[in-house]
Amino acid sequence: MNYLLRVMRCWSRMKGKLYIIGAGISLDYLTIKALKILRNVKNVFLDGYTGVLLGDGSRLAEIIGGREYKVLSRRDLEDLNGELIFKALEEGDVALVSPGDALIATTHVNLMIEARRRGYDVEVVPGVSIISASISVSGLMAYKLGKVSTITYPKEGVVYEYFYDVIKENSARNLHTLLLLELDVERGVFMTIRDAIQILFDIERSRGEGVISPNRLAVGISRLGDVEMKVCPDELGKLINIDFGKPPHTLIITSPKLHFIEKDALEVVKDVYCR
Amino acid sequence: MNYLLRVMRCWSRMKGKLYIIGAGISLDYLTIKALKILRNVKNVFLDGYTGVLLGDGSRLAEIIGGREYKVLSRRDLEDLNGELIFKALEEGDVALVSPGDALIATTHVNLMIEARRRGYDVEVVPGVSIISASISVSGLMAYKLGKVSTITYPKEGVVYEYFYDVIKENSARNLHTLLLLELDVERGVFMTIRDAIQILFDIERSRGEGVISPNRLAVGISRLGDVEMKVCPDELGKLINIDFGKPPHTLIITSPKLHFIEKDALEVVKDVYCR
Repeated sequence: MNYLLRVMRCWSRMKGKLYIIGAGISLDYLTIKALKILRNVKNVFLDGYTGVLLGDGSRLAEIIGGREYKVLSRRDLEDLNGELIFKALEEGDVALVSPGDALIATTHVNLMIEARRRGYDVEVVPGVSIISASISVSGLMAYKLGKVSTITYPKEGVVYEYFYDVIKENSARNLHTLLLLELDVERGVFMTIRDAIQILFDIERSRGEGVISPNRLAVGISRLGDVEMKVCPDELGKLINIDFGKPPHTLIITSPKLHFIEKDALEVVKDVYCR
Repeated sequence: MNYLLRVMRCWSRMKGKLYIIGAGISLDYLTIKALKILRNVKNVFLDGYTGVLLGDGSRLAEIIGGREYKVLSRRDLEDLNGELIFKALEEGDVALVSPGDALIATTHVNLMIEARRRGYDVEVVPGVSIISASISVSGLMAYKLGKVSTITYPKEGVVYEYFYDVIKENSARNLHTLLLLELDVERGVFMTIRDAIQILFDIERSRGEGVISPNRLAVGISRLGDVEMKVCPDELGKLINIDFGKPPHTLIITSPKLHFIEKDALEVVKDVYCR
């Protein structure tokens, strides 16, 4: 058994290696490590399904040294189980670049598992994630971040309320709730902060549990990491009227009680990033 | 008032700008954005107090184009309230580089607030954070990350148990608990995974609430982002006997019930990163 394992490992070293690379919150946040790998692998794929790569798309080719790359769709990644990637691995090392952190999407975890099952070596290269960066750029305390959730639009008449319960539970523990807003690149769905707040208000009206109110403090963030990024701490009733511009948008419902340093930090952030 | 604000803003543009830069989990994880800033500012400071910059220290100077930089101690950052930074800001733009994410330490948030009070412009440059990267590299689901906590050594006979309660509450919600281990660069204190587990076992023995047991599944991570990084998913009773090598160490107590994709991912991670 031990021998078989060693033979398998030896064989896997002869085949290509799959690098799953987090590209970060925008192209400017690619890491030195990611760049080195991207310039050396045989094939580069960009995940065009689970997230948006901020910055001029054509810049990626330039940044990685004038290399060609192929954008993978939902069909490539899910229906066809990444077959294109495995085909390319037969020829040599492959990098799959995904916006944000490396393994945030289940799609990528599945690819990692499948690659390993087929005997390929894999390496995960973490990137700057919306999860820590949105808290960091707001000046809020990372120790007070609770469970993260995603707000989705009602579908075929069904209203999802799961995120409302997450906010409720986090608030009871005086934790911040980071809400990612529904995003489907291929269908062109990019939920705005305005829509997210409206959905929260609607659920509050029907459930009446006092979790959400127009004067509850939150932080609206758009295009984090981009030159046009906006970070606005304010009451939900006021944030709903702010134009946050192009996607993606993110919303943090702050903990009911803020530390005085967090209060001061939010004032600075508003002054600097909410113009 | 509005006029005064405009005058202040104009004035602040004439003074230096403070960039608070997250250097990421190792020097290889510096971002393109961070590099550009570091090569252009007048003065570079490295926070040598709140974290460890993995990789050969002398490489930082080389990476930022042969520039000199000054390492700041706890005394510089806390007792002297960053006076060196403010003095340098009188001469032009300043970058404060800190290991990990940009504003994770309260020290940096305080500096940002103070810089703004003194009329300097500030910019936060997020980096690859241990918080998202440790979950990402383990193949665990980011949506299941609960409140983060730090394990500290007993001090002058006082045993801190706060993190035990955090694990308890997170577990009740089936969430993972990321535990940062006590680290004090200047005093040379770097808690190991072995010590952390021993402390948890001790608290469990005295409280007996069934939160921690030798067969509870966890992930031990050392030197995340470094070439010598180790990521080992296993039962606490087994992890306590593994030599994780040099600091820093991190420990994730996984949620009581794992998703089947998480189970498969942990097996792959063990095979790839726990040699």
